[in-house]
Amino acid sequence: MADTYTPPKVWTWDKESGGKFASINRPIAGPTHDKDLPVGTHPFQLYSLATPNGVKVTVLFEELLAAGHSDAEYDAWLINIGDGNQFGSGFVDVNPNSKIPALLDKSGPEPIRVFESGAILLHLAEKFDAFLGNTAQRAEMLSWLFWQMGSAPYLGGGFGHFYAYAPEKWQYPIDRFAMETKRQLDVLDRNLAEREFMTGDHYTIADMAIWAWYGQLALGRLYDAGEFLDVASYANVQRWAQAIDARPAVLRGRMVNRTFGEPELQLHERHDAGDFDTQTQDKIGE
Amino acid sequence: MADTYTPPKVWTWDKESGGKFASINRPIAGPTHDKDLPVGTHPFQLYSLATPNGVKVTVLFEELLAAGHSDAEYDAWLINIGDGNQFGSGFVDVNPNSKIPALLDKSGPEPIRVFESGAILLHLAEKFDAFLGNTAQRAEMLSWLFWQMGSAPYLGGGFGHFYAYAPEKWQYPIDRFAMETKRQLDVLDRNLAEREFMTGDHYTIADMAIWAWYGQLALGRLYDAGEFLDVASYANVQRWAQAIDARPAVLRGRMVNRTFGEPELQLHERHDAGDFDTQTQDKIGE
Repeated sequence: MADTYTPPKVWTWDKESGGKFASINRPIAGPTHDKDLPVGTHPFQLYSLATPNGVKVTVLFEELLAAGHSDAEYDAWLINIGDGNQFGSGFVDVNPNSKIPALLDKSGPEPIRVFESGAILLHLAEKFDAFLGNTAQRAEMLSWLFWQMGSAPYLGGGFGHFYAYAPEKWQYPIDRFAMETKRQLDVLDRNLAEREFMTGDHYTIADMAIWAWYGQLALGRLYDAGEFLDVASYANVQRWAQAIDARPAVLRGRMVNRTFGEPELQLHERHDAGDFDTQTQDKIGE
Repeated sequence: MADTYTPPKVWTWDKESGGKFASINRPIAGPTHDKDLPVGTHPFQLYSLATPNGVKVTVLFEELLAAGHSDAEYDAWLINIGDGNQFGSGFVDVNPNSKIPALLDKSGPEPIRVFESGAILLHLAEKFDAFLGNTAQRAEMLSWLFWQMGSAPYLGGGFGHFYAYAPEKWQYPIDRFAMETKRQLDVLDRNLAEREFMTGDHYTIADMAIWAWYGQLALGRLYDAGEFLDVASYANVQRWAQAIDARPAVLRGRMVNRTFGEPELQLHERHDAGDFDTQTQDKIGE
């Protein structure tokens, strides 16, 4: 990449390029192999991984269950994206975009698919009429929910890729995406200077969505970039991120489909509330 | 940028870097100057520019009016982002993220703000109960609407920036984002092989959102990249993009807040349905 170049008239695929995730990035969609998805007994079947986009949804499920919505029981199956599970035919049927998380909702008369983490959050929150905030604040909640979806690609696909995953470190893209990420943190910080949660007094799916990315970034958990982005300087984001992080449902949500980091936080699949205790005891016993 | 470098411990802002849009990209949020927004007489006040994100919303307004929703009358005010209008205090009050489009909804008991194009689309479609598709397909519609919001940053902020706007052309980021853009086009092409519109038989806000970016890309209108991305090869996207492009409301939506391209398509502000005719006659007469 180092030198300026002249692009060809028509782009072609060089399968050797692409950095850490070269093996899972392709210019074509669709399945690469036949593979059915497992289906459990609960109304909701989640196929995911504990990346920020995955954590959004498991946090919501755990918050719904903690709030007494016993109909929100779910099976969480692991999709290992490094192994290409997202390109199996069954997964592509649920999410033609081959990204986690993907949801099969069996709670109604016909099973339906829902993909994109923001859509899954809104679908579930509306189904249970929970974590939507006040009706009068619906537009504000939607604004922040969509803000997260349109903003985080600059953090993840931009900053995270070029700072942590690209084959070399280049200044221009790191500068470009670090600047935008810091601007986004400042947008949040100014909003949270005036409000307890993103849309006001109520903890909503907009908080869950934004926390999974920007809250965890502020807590130093993404890309080892806390110092580089001076995340400690966003005091209101810190206060809010820590408050959400202290919720037991959020800890459980972080554990589900987690295959990296501290062993005691890894619950590779979740099928029952008791799985968390078993997992913790197993790991502590190791 | 050309050479690999060692990032500093803490990122700092070099105001000279950034390419074509350096002057409007900042690492901090908030207003740069005091400036009230104009407010017209219609229930909806839109502050926007005819980029793809802006066009989504003006297309919806024009479709609503064409479908007989006379309560959807709107004033569309021009926000010139090259001049920094998005950093005026009035604009920041409506959208703290300083991006177009932003909406002030005066149709209810209290004026409310809505920002992020996807949130504006959903807010308006729900208010008028229009262009949402079948109730049974709501989850599918939401999935594709959120898909657009999470995907287009790779097209616009990734591919478009590095292919068209960055100060030099570098192969690695162009390859990275061209590959992802082509994958996204293929996702759409496979879906549209089986359906007239993105979610089935009904034209919805998901189509409007996706068309503004990927439809216009397929029609060769973005970044002069039609040949490079071989957009002609996505036959189903072509069929769908052309069908939507032929709708009179879509042409009107493209014209509103447009300050570039063909003069006869530029209606800098829109306050009345008659503005389109006047504009066209003025320009033809020039």
